[in-house]
Amino acid sequence: MSIEVVAFDADDTLWHSEIHFVRTEAKFVELLSPWASPAETSERLLKMEQSNLGLFGYGMKGFTLSMVETALEVSGGQISQASISEVIRWGKDMLAHSVELIDDVAETVAAVGKVYRLVLITKGDLSHQESKVARSGLEQHFESVQVVSEKTPATYAGIVSRLRIEPNEFVMVGNSFRSDIEPVLAIGAAAVHVAYQHTWSHEQAEPATHDRLWLADGIADVVSILQGVAL
Amino acid sequence: MSIEVVAFDADDTLWHSEIHFVRTEAKFVELLSPWASPAETSERLLKMEQSNLGLFGYGMKGFTLSMVETALEVSGGQISQASISEVIRWGKDMLAHSVELIDDVAETVAAVGKVYRLVLITKGDLSHQESKVARSGLEQHFESVQVVSEKTPATYAGIVSRLRIEPNEFVMVGNSFRSDIEPVLAIGAAAVHVAYQHTWSHEQAEPATHDRLWLADGIADVVSILQGVAL
Repeated sequence: MSIEVVAFDADDTLWHSEIHFVRTEAKFVELLSPWASPAETSERLLKMEQSNLGLFGYGMKGFTLSMVETALEVSGGQISQASISEVIRWGKDMLAHSVELIDDVAETVAAVGKVYRLVLITKGDLSHQESKVARSGLEQHFESVQVVSEKTPATYAGIVSRLRIEPNEFVMVGNSFRSDIEPVLAIGAAAVHVAYQHTWSHEQAEPATHDRLWLADGIADVVSILQGVAL
Repeated sequence: MSIEVVAFDADDTLWHSEIHFVRTEAKFVELLSPWASPAETSERLLKMEQSNLGLFGYGMKGFTLSMVETALEVSGGQISQASISEVIRWGKDMLAHSVELIDDVAETVAAVGKVYRLVLITKGDLSHQESKVARSGLEQHFESVQVVSEKTPATYAGIVSRLRIEPNEFVMVGNSFRSDIEPVLAIGAAAVHVAYQHTWSHEQAEPATHDRLWLADGIADVVSILQGVAL
């Protein structure tokens, strides 16, 4: 294949994101410990998030509303008003949190950007994602930033078409098999999976093997993988 | 000018939106009437929304979170847990509400689309806006749908550039002077203001007069206005 465009996922590929959900959820299950075990609260929160996904989409605002709903439900309406305020404050803290790049990201994006056109493709709340891109210091490397509501094969096919390239000229780099790898392979494009320490249950999918898929332990490996592909 | 692309705002230009906020706010001020007058609650809700805008962006999820925060604040933490649940349910009802086109919209969009390239440009929650576009029955008329976090001159300049046209080939049709008219005139493009019965306080701006601005009482007038411009 002849690579023209390299696309990067953002959350947990370029910067830490899931860790903020993990930390907030740890406080949340503690808050609800008078009414349910941590495992039960986590399970009910996940179910609430999944049942709200169609209405809320991805992102921290929906997560915050789902926490409030779960707190009211798990506590049987006994959770205090002060605790509800606290949960909303946690959500706002997550939205305001500084953007922490993952190790080697700045150097890797700059190096890849010297050779290929770069785009950024991410899910979540539009305003929050744009704010993170702006604060990341990486924006100048990307010719476009696409915030999408779902990462389906149709989503990627639309992006590839608007880039005026063929699927076999497109490589996606990301940490989620479900969102960054499977739909990309499905349209005939290539993908690099970069392992990350935390993956939200909803995003988990079986690691795949495929002749257009490469596995990286860290983002720095992307440079040598792309060089190998281009040979 | 030689018009190439006609862009439509969506909320309160193609379909009713603000009316749902107005109706929900009426229930909300009633809910808080033990603690504050309707006028005071409305004012504190607007201030809360504006102070949250940087973190939440536009849309109904942020509105719902702002209602919950305002309810806790105005009631001094006395609002019942059941009432908080109810406020969140109102937010979800707004998100799930059917899309009601404004009178003459379907015919007007179809007629304009026979002559010009059409795009849709809207603010708000990404997943909710996409869901409304899909349910509107209008999607096939638009070559692209742009959900944006803010409507600034830079936003419009970027869209015009990606459409590969000049500003003087672009006309924006919308109901908000602040979002749909002023920034469009600022980049040298033209605009048609279509009056709507409700405008959110945050979106209010002085009606302007300008040689690239036309005022319409209803969207059906857009057809004859564009014909006049093209002459």
